[in-house]
Amino acid sequence: MEINCQKEDILMGIQTAGRAISGKNTLPILGGILIQAQNNSLNIKSTDLDIAIECSVVADVVKEGELVIADGRRFIEIVRQLPEGNINISAMNDFDLTIKYGESSLNIRGFDGEQFPLLPGREGDIHGNMAAEVFNRMVREVAIAAASDESRPIFTGILIDIQGENVIMVATDTHRLAKAEGIWQGDDQIKVVVPAKTMLEITKIAAGEENIEITISKKHICFVMGNTVFISRIINGQYPDYEPIMPKEEQYKTEVSVAKKTLLNSLSRASLLARDNNSIVKLNFTQNEIVMTADSPDVGNIKENIPANIEGEYFQTAYNVRYLIDALKVMEGENILMRLTGVITPGIILPQEEKNYTYLLLPIRLSNQ
Amino acid sequence: MEINCQKEDILMGIQTAGRAISGKNTLPILGGILIQAQNNSLNIKSTDLDIAIECSVVADVVKEGELVIADGRRFIEIVRQLPEGNINISAMNDFDLTIKYGESSLNIRGFDGEQFPLLPGREGDIHGNMAAEVFNRMVREVAIAAASDESRPIFTGILIDIQGENVIMVATDTHRLAKAEGIWQGDDQIKVVVPAKTMLEITKIAAGEENIEITISKKHICFVMGNTVFISRIINGQYPDYEPIMPKEEQYKTEVSVAKKTLLNSLSRASLLARDNNSIVKLNFTQNEIVMTADSPDVGNIKENIPANIEGEYFQTAYNVRYLIDALKVMEGENILMRLTGVITPGIILPQEEKNYTYLLLPIRLSNQ
Repeated sequence: MEINCQKEDILMGIQTAGRAISGKNTLPILGGILIQAQNNSLNIKSTDLDIAIECSVVADVVKEGELVIADGRRFIEIVRQLPEGNINISAMNDFDLTIKYGESSLNIRGFDGEQFPLLPGREGDIHGNMAAEVFNRMVREVAIAAASDESRPIFTGILIDIQGENVIMVATDTHRLAKAEGIWQGDDQIKVVVPAKTMLEITKIAAGEENIEITISKKHICFVMGNTVFISRIINGQYPDYEPIMPKEEQYKTEVSVAKKTLLNSLSRASLLARDNNSIVKLNFTQNEIVMTADSPDVGNIKENIPANIEGEYFQTAYNVRYLIDALKVMEGENILMRLTGVITPGIILPQEEKNYTYLLLPIRLSNQ
Repeated sequence: MEINCQKEDILMGIQTAGRAISGKNTLPILGGILIQAQNNSLNIKSTDLDIAIECSVVADVVKEGELVIADGRRFIEIVRQLPEGNINISAMNDFDLTIKYGESSLNIRGFDGEQFPLLPGREGDIHGNMAAEVFNRMVREVAIAAASDESRPIFTGILIDIQGENVIMVATDTHRLAKAEGIWQGDDQIKVVVPAKTMLEITKIAAGEENIEITISKKHICFVMGNTVFISRIINGQYPDYEPIMPKEEQYKTEVSVAKKTLLNSLSRASLLARDNNSIVKLNFTQNEIVMTADSPDVGNIKENIPANIEGEYFQTAYNVRYLIDALKVMEGENILMRLTGVITPGIILPQEEKNYTYLLLPIRLSNQ
């Protein structure tokens, strides 16, 4: 194997594919990066068996071949430190690698490419496209509600619910639920659950792209963005049906319209005092304002009056301030709506201008209620 | 106690003084910030008993008084989150604090100001000034050589050696020694050792200032920068005499002149391979170049030829690559000189243009030497 390529090109490729390098030490080969020189490109692959990333970059292939660079993360660090410009990469002593740059050279250890695990294919029955911008918005908006605790794996995932030409993403840790809607460029019916962490990784790669091509098979989901292919396992199990959890239109008693940034700033101050008291913030919805209070007996307390337009019943309810902040931070637009069903029953938060996002939140039941 | 002040003013003051808040939980009061309203200013103080910082900011004092805010770090976080503009701060129930901003308010817990430890005074026999820029350069250049390991406290310090109108700073962890020279605006003779960590904290506060006023007493050293007073304890003990360690002029056998950035880039690459082999990098000083090699049997190896002007004997020696990188990173100017006395005897590195910095480095003795 021998290639000539630009440092910037290969660096981009190994940084992208390198996101799948395993952090665990179970199988040494999963700490490596597979490079394959063929035709006029270098294919770069890594996997931790949960996800696999392939990236192809332009290279002048002098001699075809493949090998695994044993310490993939170190390889990335080394290439990052190389001078700009052309570099020559070739196999040495079978599977070790020589990198020549200017008058200098370095060698690093490798494995036989044959030892690298076979990655899942890109085939699948379901096939469609999403605008990268829409995909990224939806993932960002719902990932906040996924569970980080691995005890019930299904809740660490994001449900991708494709309904014809619409796609809905949902995540919940059972305390709150986030739901985002967008357009599926295809016509399919399927529900799959993909780890939220993986979805967030994909948004990083998709950030510079226009389109994401998505293919779904029984066990895997494949995302193609530009010259990068990202394959993830699907989480097994039945995702709870989210529609029945949503309040019915007739249950809403109060509708609050408030400036997002004003509310977010007030909640941020409250969270500094609430964090010693189970993150409880109380919101009293009354005439033309929300009276926000939080109180931690050992630290202090806060009271703010936030201008708001309140229609319907007036009452006070308590929330986990972190959950409110999480939602406001990812929501687009200047104003939000809160639609509430009562003191201890669920409410929703949504952007006032765009109706493609809904955040369902359960109040905290206080001991005196 | 009651004052009116601008959020930006008090934030600057508590952020500066807050650097001395104790991270340990030994004495609860050391986690606090003392505020004293008197005349037309608010004095803000904190201490961890090793250092103390006092900062005074402009305030409209409605009623004089003092108190300790119990959780100083939280207070800083809260003020940072307040809206811009005027805030009103007053004592409530004796020692708690009420902050009013717009229509909103919050209360946080406090202690009696009398409970706060008495800070050392600013008096001392030795008194002079340094340009903040010179002070910061010197500290940055020598702090890299101080020991981080606390087993021999004297080596965690920087020696400040005032000789008339000159000031020399020295730090060493016994493997390398850094020495910087500058001007003392005064005429004194004294040697004191101040913790390197403390000196680095002072450079952060001094960054925006022109001048540092320094006063030295038996146990303390006091730095006044603008409206901030920084007092540190002095480390007890005898600092080793550094002059006899320096090679004599006649011992130098080889002088190397090399571009700093080129050498630094090469060493950075070498360090990625050397780190599995005791950080050993070999430099072979020969005609018109340094041949740099590093080798870690399990990872790989590197060889680079670095253009250099070499006068005197040619030989190869080995260094800890981290120690070389540390020095090159803090040195000013485009070119450096290496003056070497032999394969296993000390050498020095200094900037080629400015002769106010010297870094003494011991080669690593390899097993085959």
